[in-house]
Amino acid sequence: MAKVIIDKGRQKRIESGHPWVYANEVNAIEGEYVPGGIVEVVNFKGRFIGKGYINPKSQILVRILTRDKNEEIDEDFFRRRISSAWEYRKKVSDINCCRVVFAEADLLPALIVDKFGDCLVVQTLALGIDLHKDTIIKILNEIIKPKGIYERNDVPVRQLEGLEMKKGFLSEAFDTMVKINENGVNFYVDIENGQKTGYFLDQKENRAAIKDIVKGAKVLDCFCHTGSFSLHAGFYGAKEVLGIDISEHAVDFARKNAELNNLSDVCKFEAVNAFDKLRELQENNEKYDVVILDPPAFTKSRAAIEGAYRGYKDINLRAMKIIKKGGFLVTASCSQHMTPDLFRQVIFDAATDARKTLRQVEYRSQAKDHPILWSSGETHYLKFIVLQIL
Amino acid sequence: MAKVIIDKGRQKRIESGHPWVYANEVNAIEGEYVPGGIVEVVNFKGRFIGKGYINPKSQILVRILTRDKNEEIDEDFFRRRISSAWEYRKKVSDINCCRVVFAEADLLPALIVDKFGDCLVVQTLALGIDLHKDTIIKILNEIIKPKGIYERNDVPVRQLEGLEMKKGFLSEAFDTMVKINENGVNFYVDIENGQKTGYFLDQKENRAAIKDIVKGAKVLDCFCHTGSFSLHAGFYGAKEVLGIDISEHAVDFARKNAELNNLSDVCKFEAVNAFDKLRELQENNEKYDVVILDPPAFTKSRAAIEGAYRGYKDINLRAMKIIKKGGFLVTASCSQHMTPDLFRQVIFDAATDARKTLRQVEYRSQAKDHPILWSSGETHYLKFIVLQIL
Repeated sequence: MAKVIIDKGRQKRIESGHPWVYANEVNAIEGEYVPGGIVEVVNFKGRFIGKGYINPKSQILVRILTRDKNEEIDEDFFRRRISSAWEYRKKVSDINCCRVVFAEADLLPALIVDKFGDCLVVQTLALGIDLHKDTIIKILNEIIKPKGIYERNDVPVRQLEGLEMKKGFLSEAFDTMVKINENGVNFYVDIENGQKTGYFLDQKENRAAIKDIVKGAKVLDCFCHTGSFSLHAGFYGAKEVLGIDISEHAVDFARKNAELNNLSDVCKFEAVNAFDKLRELQENNEKYDVVILDPPAFTKSRAAIEGAYRGYKDINLRAMKIIKKGGFLVTASCSQHMTPDLFRQVIFDAATDARKTLRQVEYRSQAKDHPILWSSGETHYLKFIVLQIL
Repeated sequence: MAKVIIDKGRQKRIESGHPWVYANEVNAIEGEYVPGGIVEVVNFKGRFIGKGYINPKSQILVRILTRDKNEEIDEDFFRRRISSAWEYRKKVSDINCCRVVFAEADLLPALIVDKFGDCLVVQTLALGIDLHKDTIIKILNEIIKPKGIYERNDVPVRQLEGLEMKKGFLSEAFDTMVKINENGVNFYVDIENGQKTGYFLDQKENRAAIKDIVKGAKVLDCFCHTGSFSLHAGFYGAKEVLGIDISEHAVDFARKNAELNNLSDVCKFEAVNAFDKLRELQENNEKYDVVILDPPAFTKSRAAIEGAYRGYKDINLRAMKIIKKGGFLVTASCSQHMTPDLFRQVIFDAATDARKTLRQVEYRSQAKDHPILWSSGETHYLKFIVLQIL
């Protein structure tokens, strides 16, 4: 097995448990390897760190799979890892719909498996895991026994690994418009054409966290996508909910989801830019009891953080201005580069400008089925805060 | 009304919403005042910041009550503030037992009101609020209609305000051994002689957060006090629970609480030093599915933070060593000076030393009835993390 030798001074992060070896951290590679194959990672003294798969085409040269020298990367390895991921979800999650495998956080780098009702959606986002796709599918069928499995590998990140973008069935064909139940609310999930794997499961417990504050409330849900927060608000007894999203398609989908829950009278949707709508509502002196902000990532790179800061500040400032005294702001950021401290700073700065006093009801992160591997900061990305405007 | 003029360059924190004016931030006081009376706080340009009560004996010279120049500090003021605090708890908390007023976070500096079943426990921890005690009691009787009210002003912090330490009834006498129900678990609370107001309500939702991970588990609860986490573990289906605490009295009390819930077979208690017991368990190669660490504050000052770091690291390291692979560490810190970042660093350092990989299931803070006023960092003190040991 080829040996990847880490440069002196570059080993600390990797030895502390981070699974990625960047190409520019490597001093030398001894021996032959095939792209996607298993190599050994050692420090400059030759001490074993771990075994992982290599891809010379990727900036992330090696992703470590195990730190046990005696552990073989074979079918049983994948069976152990997937079983243990599944056992964890059965313990801490409602498995009607959940993330079954969360890549690095389940020690299975670049593998995503989401469960929607009886169906699984799979992404293999690096060459080294893609090569084991058949084994992984076999094991998923064995352990979870889904009705069907769908591949959503139509994502640009695969190109960085030299992989093609594609999607399709990895089982018998089935109806890809799947029905799920989250916290008692029903949703259609379009696993073929929906964003990412079809639905953002990472806010599951956060959606439930709005229960107490939306009862009898007038709620505005910005960036409502297919209506997940809006319908939770309706389900938990909101008096009226307006969900807004720039996408006509998303808003149509949200309306279908409202019908599915008999909430069409309570939950209305409008295809409109959230920034513009918030300004319009303020000009018309409209006030809400609760405003929810669940925007897409305003930045996907560290470099663009300043622009993202302005975007988050602007949207939060506008929201604060239309919330009644004593009402609530529910605000989230899914951008990994917007750290929790920075995100809190944004909100605090917006409050200072808006002359509002903020009181934190709850601070949350990702759903438990998206656990955070402490040694791998990338697995921590979601911030979710419930604040009262005093 | 006397005017307290803030020194140039010292106004920012106060203008941003922090309610405290330190004596050394004041340039001059114009006009007469009585200790505990209401004064106006202005910046060096004479611009109004707020009104609050003054105590020349205290390092915290003024605590701001309102930022509205036209708001009088009279009975109606306290009625509005207490009503709004109570409405918030009715919305977000189970009010069988809850913190009704959380001082600065309810814009009522130095006032604590806890509700245990039908009874209230009150603390007035500064002169300026103590002077309004009768009004506050009247309003609490009016709004909450408790069976009785008890005063727990037997706390040293009162001496910094020139106030005597005392405790006793503020209503007809009643049985001070009160029964409460928290998340379905019953507890006796000794409001006369228990710690602080008798029971730590700030972990209410955190205690509920262990539900999924303790089912069928062997649990060790360190610093168990009167058994709150232990009995929650038992109630949620743990196979066996050992609660340990240095105090014989606490452990006896915990046993009584176990009886109250018919959990004496599952929950056992032992009066022992947690550090010693953890070492002993490790030496005997005893393993647990879940270890809970809810220690008292290891530091109450910023200066002692290094010692506290060592204490937290030591206890967490020992705990990690006796947790089974795949088991859970539930770890908390109630020390305000141990910031969330520093606390995470402590745990991460302990894991590095113990050669353990940590995966975060959930990060939580205080119960919702202990909200965090963002402009007043002191109101944020509790960290609570659930981690899986991979």
